[in-house]
Amino acid sequence: MRIALLGGTGDIGEGLTLRFARDTDHELLVGSRDPEKARDAVDDYKAELDSHAVDDPDINGFGNEMAADRADVAILSVPPYYAGDTVDAIDGVLDADTVLVTPAVGMKGDEDGMHYHPPGAGSVTELVAQRASDGVPVVGAFHNLAAGKLADLSAEFDLDTLLVGDDDSAKETVRALANEIDGLRALDAGPLANAAEVESVTPLVINIAKHNDELHDVGVKWV
Amino acid sequence: MRIALLGGTGDIGEGLTLRFARDTDHELLVGSRDPEKARDAVDDYKAELDSHAVDDPDINGFGNEMAADRADVAILSVPPYYAGDTVDAIDGVLDADTVLVTPAVGMKGDEDGMHYHPPGAGSVTELVAQRASDGVPVVGAFHNLAAGKLADLSAEFDLDTLLVGDDDSAKETVRALANEIDGLRALDAGPLANAAEVESVTPLVINIAKHNDELHDVGVKWV
Repeated sequence: MRIALLGGTGDIGEGLTLRFARDTDHELLVGSRDPEKARDAVDDYKAELDSHAVDDPDINGFGNEMAADRADVAILSVPPYYAGDTVDAIDGVLDADTVLVTPAVGMKGDEDGMHYHPPGAGSVTELVAQRASDGVPVVGAFHNLAAGKLADLSAEFDLDTLLVGDDDSAKETVRALANEIDGLRALDAGPLANAAEVESVTPLVINIAKHNDELHDVGVKWV
Repeated sequence: MRIALLGGTGDIGEGLTLRFARDTDHELLVGSRDPEKARDAVDDYKAELDSHAVDDPDINGFGNEMAADRADVAILSVPPYYAGDTVDAIDGVLDADTVLVTPAVGMKGDEDGMHYHPPGAGSVTELVAQRASDGVPVVGAFHNLAAGKLADLSAEFDLDTLLVGDDDSAKETVRALANEIDGLRALDAGPLANAAEVESVTPLVINIAKHNDELHDVGVKWV
């Protein structure tokens, strides 16, 4: 399968790229608005993978649109405030055969901690679904993973990720893909309308990490 | 220590009472608007505890106000829409020496699932803090525990509960109390202003339970 990491030069994109490269046989397309930046990131990722004895990973850098055009699964690993614009920029090349995956979460910090701050659509996941053309299957996933831990291939990893989506077949594709990452288990949290409760776990894990010394880079297991 | 379970005839009150009775030496005061109902519930709890070989538990039934008046820690185990009125009803007997604990969460269900539905105060926890008199320390805790599992003393139990509060000493009291329940670990999620993200995990666990056959009565571990 071909997996595009759109905005794949950012921290969540880095972590997903490294883990997909190490744990799966999929072809990875790192996308950026600037193709040169994507290719530079790919060089860094290959060096990091090499230092973990992952030889010849199948990763290449592209502009976001070209990466999305070639992908079976396109992961919108961009900051929440770019999610809508990034969908608009690639929407012409998306179709019913490309699963669009969104891990972004809107948050706002103040002196008390991080707070969930969704867009008017109710959640970033629903915003992405609204902005994508009809027929493009959208799945929310990979929301609550600490980017630092994800990108640290030597980190012990035993975490869950929650899926939301209205297209069962697309959800199954993403479930299988997520389960291919060592130590990651995908669970179903229902339709897109349930995305807000999934996304709001992200500020919560940041608050827990801040207030519990032993839980830096904390994640979640549903047990 | 004396612990009041206000609204302790409901399902979260039942579970907390049974587990405190089995796992701690504290004196338990089950409260209800109707003292007779509280005493009937206590008879049921004692029978249940007896069937789990817990002899002579220190539990008695009272009206909510009398239970709160005698308590060092008063747990508002009432439905979210009664939380404010219950605080009003007992506020005259609360003081700085009584820690008021709130586990209630506002939710709304539709055909997609359960959704977080906080009151205007931002969360039930903050609503309780607003309605209580100045100086009464309020701690949010025990939000995300499945009531059925909590009340089933034979259920395997290895879960976390999150604490929010602005009074560090009160939070430490509740942390110690929660940690006395076998298999429960209390973690700090920061001040009261972080309560919404904690509370919104409750509809999420209900959605996860609905969509994953193996996760009936699911809870959460922060790892």
